[in-house]
Amino acid sequence: MNQRMYELGSKRSVIREIFEFGKSRAAQIGAENVYDFSLGNPSVAPPQIVEDTLIELLRSDNPTAMHGYTSAQGDASVRGAIAEYIAKTHGVECDPSFLYMTCGAAASLTITLSALCNRGDEVITFAPYFTEYKVFAETAGAKLIALASDPETFQIDFNLLEGAIGKNTAAILVNSPNNPSGVVYNEQTIRKLAEMLCKKSKEYGKTIYLITDEPYRELVYGGVEVPYLTKYYPHTIVCYSYSKSLSLPGERIGYIFVNPKAERAKELYLAVCGAGRALGYVCAPSLFQKMVAKCQGITSDVSIYEKNRNLLADALRKFGYQCVQPDGAFYLFVRALEEDANAFCERAKKYNLLLVPGDDFGCKGYVRIAYCVSTEMIQRALPSFEKLANEYKK
Amino acid sequence: MNQRMYELGSKRSVIREIFEFGKSRAAQIGAENVYDFSLGNPSVAPPQIVEDTLIELLRSDNPTAMHGYTSAQGDASVRGAIAEYIAKTHGVECDPSFLYMTCGAAASLTITLSALCNRGDEVITFAPYFTEYKVFAETAGAKLIALASDPETFQIDFNLLEGAIGKNTAAILVNSPNNPSGVVYNEQTIRKLAEMLCKKSKEYGKTIYLITDEPYRELVYGGVEVPYLTKYYPHTIVCYSYSKSLSLPGERIGYIFVNPKAERAKELYLAVCGAGRALGYVCAPSLFQKMVAKCQGITSDVSIYEKNRNLLADALRKFGYQCVQPDGAFYLFVRALEEDANAFCERAKKYNLLLVPGDDFGCKGYVRIAYCVSTEMIQRALPSFEKLANEYKK
Repeated sequence: MNQRMYELGSKRSVIREIFEFGKSRAAQIGAENVYDFSLGNPSVAPPQIVEDTLIELLRSDNPTAMHGYTSAQGDASVRGAIAEYIAKTHGVECDPSFLYMTCGAAASLTITLSALCNRGDEVITFAPYFTEYKVFAETAGAKLIALASDPETFQIDFNLLEGAIGKNTAAILVNSPNNPSGVVYNEQTIRKLAEMLCKKSKEYGKTIYLITDEPYRELVYGGVEVPYLTKYYPHTIVCYSYSKSLSLPGERIGYIFVNPKAERAKELYLAVCGAGRALGYVCAPSLFQKMVAKCQGITSDVSIYEKNRNLLADALRKFGYQCVQPDGAFYLFVRALEEDANAFCERAKKYNLLLVPGDDFGCKGYVRIAYCVSTEMIQRALPSFEKLANEYKK
Repeated sequence: MNQRMYELGSKRSVIREIFEFGKSRAAQIGAENVYDFSLGNPSVAPPQIVEDTLIELLRSDNPTAMHGYTSAQGDASVRGAIAEYIAKTHGVECDPSFLYMTCGAAASLTITLSALCNRGDEVITFAPYFTEYKVFAETAGAKLIALASDPETFQIDFNLLEGAIGKNTAAILVNSPNNPSGVVYNEQTIRKLAEMLCKKSKEYGKTIYLITDEPYRELVYGGVEVPYLTKYYPHTIVCYSYSKSLSLPGERIGYIFVNPKAERAKELYLAVCGAGRALGYVCAPSLFQKMVAKCQGITSDVSIYEKNRNLLADALRKFGYQCVQPDGAFYLFVRALEEDANAFCERAKKYNLLLVPGDDFGCKGYVRIAYCVSTEMIQRALPSFEKLANEYKK
């Protein structure tokens, strides 16, 4: 038996663990009495057009083709529609022959990292970061290096980055809007990042690639812009998922876009195809491929998340909690009210508040609160948050 | 960049290669003039109840739950329905907590092999075998050892197997009904296999596991029985897919069933969960999980494949081709009419017959003919098969 796999299976992702706890707790005391803020499972329904399009596709007169294998890299017309949308929306070059359809963001990342990395390579990311990055990097034989961010803004700390890039650095992995902080990298951060990667690539005589994990691209509030990274740094690979924008996380549909202007883009794309094959992906689910092609530019009603963010962030601040204002995604990353965030989360459970300690996101002393829940549940949970805060005021 | 992935991406599966060639050839001379026997893409439509169930599920009043994340191992009620069906149909113990839903057979295999194997391990299979087994074993750090089968029957050659099992053997991988030969292992073969694995496990002081890849279980003809392997050998892991039985290969839905009576079954199941996580699978597609739960025991109309088999096998024999009678799946594995099967396939292309050379299945001198096509196309293609055979009679 493989020991690494056994350990990954028995010590599961802390988020999944709490989610499972929440389900069993709900069975005991009723779902309405559990305030589960653990999982990034969208609470806003998929847009009606998703259902309508799926039903229309299901009624097509050629179901064997509809449900048949697509090309391994994805149906050609689907990739055509997505490439057109990317080019038009972001004003960048995008070519369907550099798009590879995947089973969601996790697949996009494991495939990209496996295509890019060799044993001993390093992948740099910035804390707080999505807990599974470490697992995905290690699957690719690489080591994840997580750097602390500027504690005031959660933007990149470039002094730390400069010192961390070395001859083994294969890629930088960014996630904006960020899970778990909700922070969006501003244009200044992106420009400085691109500059540094150019400089360091030259210094080490090799191309350092930029991997951008973008499932939350469309979930931004107050008119904030999310820069499209291929415009700033050519050696960029975009990992996208429709899980959050179309509220379909269980359906596993997304894509990888290798910027055609990246160094050795064609070979890199072929390595992506090879990695998809090696990891057993065959093709992305056919029906959902065809659906997303018809729903480009459409998102769930993200105004509900904005309303939740404002309600929760304002109330928590009033109760004495602190957090960096999140401009996107659907998470608040809040300072725990004691040093040990795990102890804080245990205490929160007394009030049936299920929060995720920040330790596994590479940030001790914080908790993640996923506000992709009903607004009404947030309202009901607020007294519990207040009571929890009051415990620490005694 | 990772060289292995680049090579896997640039030198793609020979089947996929021919399939892509067929698509471009069809664009040139019209799809009706290309006799594409390359791909195991079911030609029989999914049963109507698949469409009806999918539409019913899509209209459920809770679309966020319908499309939301399931537990990583799969929705509990889905696993319950499948376990019940397995137990009832095969008269074996099956427990939902030993079922793990996957994105199809390839995922089932990469996950199982990654859970089971360590670097340097060997996995034994029997030629002819599905070309991708080698890739999947190598992803798990293992080496695939392919043994020739009895040339008359394509059943296991136990003399060869006895000599091949050694201290590094982690698992035996079988596929019955077989792709590409269509052969079903009879009960005698299975009993002898179980006996030998017991003996060898004892000899080496470790459990040799049996992995059974079963996407074709329901596609058998003439009342042939496919033994259920957990009954014969406890240390069995069943890798299943609905791709062929429900004609949904593009949708990627299947499962892994770790026999609860296997040595260290609980740990092995956890390693399966870990491997799914490490490879980026998150969960199997939610809508299709819920659909298969409601379609247990249902298959596409396999009588069409039986008709195709009879039509094609009889005609080819009449033209002078030789093949072992296939009892299942939807492939004929036919002796090429010259020593070099690749040259034979090139010659077949002149008649717009797209066949797959057997070399990549570990059997030189054969070709695979996938008869999961329309009966009418087979009829139209017969004169081409005859002309091709006649070339060799000159």
